[in-house]
Amino acid sequence: MAERATGEVKDVLKRIEDHENVVGVIIVDKDGQAIHSTLDAMETSYYIQHCSTLTAIARSTIRETDPTDDIQFFRIRTKKFEIMLAPERDYLLIVLQNIKTAGKFP
Amino acid sequence: MAERATGEVKDVLKRIEDHENVVGVIIVDKDGQAIHSTLDAMETSYYIQHCSTLTAIARSTIRETDPTDDIQFFRIRTKKFEIMLAPERDYLLIVLQNIKTAGKFP
Repeated sequence: MAERATGEVKDVLKRIEDHENVVGVIIVDKDGQAIHSTLDAMETSYYIQHCSTLTAIARSTIRETDPTDDIQFFRIRTKKFEIMLAPERDYLLIVLQNIKTAGKFP
Repeated sequence: MAERATGEVKDVLKRIEDHENVVGVIIVDKDGQAIHSTLDAMETSYYIQHCSTLTAIARSTIRETDPTDDIQFFRIRTKKFEIMLAPERDYLLIVLQNIKTAGKFP
């Protein structure tokens, strides 16, 4: 069963990474360690640090108003690219995509 | 000219606020003061405080990698609603919408 799940995760990751606009994919575990990254070590640790902080603050913002609510997805559009964060229970998925061809936003 | 601009801003605000899913609209000036809000005082100051912190951290995250880049838009989707942040030079626009009918994301 675990092998099949890992295979599925790899397929999904491959599809994200093969997307023409995607320039970086990072998966972080609960301890802040990179499980997977297409970026170099310095960029990987940089994005882990900042995206984990953003996620933690956003989560506390939401939970303070409604403890039954939680974050599902996060998109930060800048002039040059887009950071997408998908915080799950055991990991955080970070996807960086450039926006030359990324389509309309928001 | 200023009157026409204010009129236009009011029209845009009205359209946002009349949108069926929108449950809150706040405009914050550079000093963190609410210029406009459809929420009560407590909720307004709560969202100003947290959304300003999120914007500041996201902005420093972006600027550290590329000082010529800057944030344009921010979307945080939770199980129950969506926070949209549009940081401009002189103000921050915060829009809260519930997601029962808000459409597909991301």
